[in-house]
Amino acid sequence: MTQQKEETIQRYRGWNEFHAREISSKLDFFSNGGRLFDVIFAQQFDRSFLEAMCSLASLIRLLAKTKTGANKLSSLLNHKRAMLYFVQPSTRTFISFLNACHILGIKTSEIRGTTTSSEVKGESPEDTIRTFASYVDLIIARHPEEGFAEKTAWVLNRTERPVSVVNGGSGPDQHPTQALLDIYTLERSFEHIGGLDGKKIAMVGDLKRGRTVRSLSYLMKNYQDVELYFVAPDVFRMKDDIKEFLKKHGIPFFETEDFNSVKPLVDAIYMTRIQKEYSEAPSQETDIYPEFHLTRDDLGLIQSHCIIMHPLPRRYEIEVEVDNDPRAVYWRQERNGMWIRAALIAYLFGVDETIRNEFR
Amino acid sequence: MTQQKEETIQRYRGWNEFHAREISSKLDFFSNGGRLFDVIFAQQFDRSFLEAMCSLASLIRLLAKTKTGANKLSSLLNHKRAMLYFVQPSTRTFISFLNACHILGIKTSEIRGTTTSSEVKGESPEDTIRTFASYVDLIIARHPEEGFAEKTAWVLNRTERPVSVVNGGSGPDQHPTQALLDIYTLERSFEHIGGLDGKKIAMVGDLKRGRTVRSLSYLMKNYQDVELYFVAPDVFRMKDDIKEFLKKHGIPFFETEDFNSVKPLVDAIYMTRIQKEYSEAPSQETDIYPEFHLTRDDLGLIQSHCIIMHPLPRRYEIEVEVDNDPRAVYWRQERNGMWIRAALIAYLFGVDETIRNEFR
Amino acid sequence: MTQQKEETIQRYRGWNEFHAREISSKLDFFSNGGRLFDVIFAQQFDRSFLEAMCSLASLIRLLAKTKTGANKLSSLLNHKRAMLYFVQPSTRTFISFLNACHILGIKTSEIRGTTTSSEVKGESPEDTIRTFASYVDLIIARHPEEGFAEKTAWVLNRTERPVSVVNGGSGPDQHPTQALLDIYTLERSFEHIGGLDGKKIAMVGDLKRGRTVRSLSYLMKNYQDVELYFVAPDVFRMKDDIKEFLKKHGIPFFETEDFNSVKPLVDAIYMTRIQKEYSEAPSQETDIYPEFHLTRDDLGLIQSHCIIMHPLPRRYEIEVEVDNDPRAVYWRQERNGMWIRAALIAYLFGVDETIRNEFR
Repeated sequence: MTQQKEETIQRYRGWNEFHAREISSKLDFFSNGGRLFDVIFAQQFDRSFLEAMCSLASLIRLLAKTKTGANKLSSLLNHKRAMLYFVQPSTRTFISFLNACHILGIKTSEIRGTTTSSEVKGESPEDTIRTFASYVDLIIARHPEEGFAEKTAWVLNRTERPVSVVNGGSGPDQHPTQALLDIYTLERSFEHIGGLDGKKIAMVGDLKRGRTVRSLSYLMKNYQDVELYFVAPDVFRMKDDIKEFLKKHGIPFFETEDFNSVKPLVDAIYMTRIQKEYSEAPSQETDIYPEFHLTRDDLGLIQSHCIIMHPLPRRYEIEVEVDNDPRAVYWRQERNGMWIRAALIAYLFGVDETIRNEFR
Repeated sequence: MTQQKEETIQRYRGWNEFHAREISSKLDFFSNGGRLFDVIFAQQFDRSFLEAMCSLASLIRLLAKTKTGANKLSSLLNHKRAMLYFVQPSTRTFISFLNACHILGIKTSEIRGTTTSSEVKGESPEDTIRTFASYVDLIIARHPEEGFAEKTAWVLNRTERPVSVVNGGSGPDQHPTQALLDIYTLERSFEHIGGLDGKKIAMVGDLKRGRTVRSLSYLMKNYQDVELYFVAPDVFRMKDDIKEFLKKHGIPFFETEDFNSVKPLVDAIYMTRIQKEYSEAPSQETDIYPEFHLTRDDLGLIQSHCIIMHPLPRRYEIEVEVDNDPRAVYWRQERNGMWIRAALIAYLFGVDETIRNEFR
Repeated sequence: MTQQKEETIQRYRGWNEFHAREISSKLDFFSNGGRLFDVIFAQQFDRSFLEAMCSLASLIRLLAKTKTGANKLSSLLNHKRAMLYFVQPSTRTFISFLNACHILGIKTSEIRGTTTSSEVKGESPEDTIRTFASYVDLIIARHPEEGFAEKTAWVLNRTERPVSVVNGGSGPDQHPTQALLDIYTLERSFEHIGGLDGKKIAMVGDLKRGRTVRSLSYLMKNYQDVELYFVAPDVFRMKDDIKEFLKKHGIPFFETEDFNSVKPLVDAIYMTRIQKEYSEAPSQETDIYPEFHLTRDDLGLIQSHCIIMHPLPRRYEIEVEVDNDPRAVYWRQERNGMWIRAALIAYLFGVDETIRNEFR
């Protein structure tokens, strides 16, 4: 074995050991003085944190409505600089984070796609990360590799000049700010009917591979008396890990393939993309499971307060005509993503109290 | 026919009907309270609007000369965010719009090229547009597809949260801000000799495919006693639609292949790119029509006040040595594009009066 | 010969004559009123300029530590706009310059890679440059072609609206801001032990092709009693041009292949990348010359004040474990690049005195 190979193994030993640990056992590593320092996992969010973010997002949204308020917001962090390191293309999440930064006055640098990165010169990913961290005060990272954001934070927290890392999506499972915006949308929509506690939520479509519905199910442990309805064809059923988690926390859930029976019962319908695996361009109607779609005809079947969510982008799951119904909140949900990300970033830089004080 | 196909047809029916209407009949749709809300067609500009934009652009240019003035400008809209959605590459127009935004303090997000867009996930273009509109206050769109900017505005104006759309060029015909900057350059150059009214303008080169000369010809209806000279080889003559329009509005025009005979007569020469179709890299001199070029030898033939314009980029149409002549205004014309775009954006956000008040 | 070919030759005659001249004979062309206007060559820097930049960079770094100071900095040039024209990909240099601009409040436009440029339409590079210059107040250019930045400045200085050009690296030899950051790192590290004068510096690795060590050797003429140790395998020895230059200026240097003998002697070790030519992915240990690497075992051999530098990115030259030693300054060196570039840009816009006055 060459010296280099040995070094590489040595270098990663610490990381591999860390990465293999239970998430719950390493949350402290991403906190500082009782506050989150890096945002890597949805598991870092407890109820009080979720409520704090939701109320902060609403205050930011309110401030942004006036020029005075918007100017106040954009002067909060105009001495800070963020790097958006998006190796995996995702226009939606990228633009959402970018504008969240701009709302707070943060100057932004962008790396989009791998070709722009100096990884071409054979630099290790850790060195690339340290380089970016040299120039900015915050790194927002999106990467196809599972654990990438976690490794970024792990690398930086062991240097003398760590900067906060926000996970903008890494690998198939973790996308914590998507979970935040979903919670915010639910809480905001149910603001006048008691919030999320006690609500019935249907999750529809490909629950097996759906990152958003998996994270959202997990976060339900923070709320009282929520019931979940998993509506999916047999091949796309929710995986056992989530179901076991729900059982452990006493959260009732029901599984069915009969979407129609669920429609009149629930307070929220969370639609997701669904299609046969490997059908990138589905050729037949059966490839896209139309019985798990929502059409204008369904609008008469659901409750008058039942909201319709979707993480977007959609293909066929929701008929375009549904958009005009006031219960269709997915466009607002998208915009909520910008507000809650602004809230999260404001919190990470410690200006959350300054924003709250504007309203005192 | 599948349900999806039906839906798609349904979805586009409204748009197709709208798009097929005469431009003059749909101008109201892009206005709001007597002011332009979207800028899609050059046909939206009347004389008073053109004059307002020209004077506003000059005020912005003047303010930008001092630090105090520039700071004033950049505080006007620093609470606003714009999206530059440039599916078709065009560095020049892109940078011009970007810096126009920056002059006014607007924060910018960029989508350049299709690969960054989430269209890859099978999202409809309308949904992509709504997504971008979720995060910003203004969309500047450039697209190879005819009618794209119009469709963008059509989609957004039917939502509960429309934002202004500016056409940065779509398809072969519409590029309204280019027309604006051409008018501004003519008016500014003739400022001390009575403006554009009564002037003789030669348009030279490929008039058949030239988007800029076509739009400019159209806008001449707003001015008094203008005469046009169309100088082109037979294969690239101005098309009949424009000629009929000019006849209808009583605007005299003359067609010739003899550039030399026109040179001493006119007040402005608008040069355009010309080369044999399909000659991307012309191999012979005859491919590029040198008799429709302007060289340093021509500088003695034109009037002492005759300005030379070109939309740029140029290849061979104007000899580089001509650049040093004070009558060559094409570099200033390019910079005028930035000022007039800043004026247009200031107007769309309703801060035009604030700028004018600086000078009262 | 066609007319076009003649014109092209004519157009470039002036440039070719200029470019062929000795650098020392053309420095005036890039200055204005006794101050640098364009930054093209490391040869433009004399001792007083280097000292001014180093002290200015430290003041900027100090100001940036507080919100008040950072706001002061970012209000200095928030009425200015810069273009980063990076035809050659270099994330590190790009992000460093971008954030240097942002620290000073400068709005930025980016062209990265050739595909975004309108060179596709057959525009000459000179016209492309003039176009960019139309919209901004500063151009930072990086290009694989030798002399590109110089040509950019040459073109613009002959127009009626020149803007400053900063060379972000062009061709194999010139990268003046890298030289600046290396000087700054040495001066800052030796701040309490008399600065760079009288120090012994080892340069290690591929000295033949290494742009950074070549520039740094050149700048040593500005310092007193410096001694250089060139540590390289025979095939990568420092070239004769630099050695002759050093002899001419009476700067002692020593050449050796024995790194170990040098380690205990020097005050700074400047490591560079080294590997067999054409070994993009070296397959054997001998391809990467491990005897010219620095490992944790070497930390006991070097002096307690001896700093370790590297221009980054690194591959194998410095073992990762070395990073934790306080004498390893390469990460700080990288960050110094941002500060010294901010200093340089502040100087070019004439706000250096304003910054100094903050401390009087």
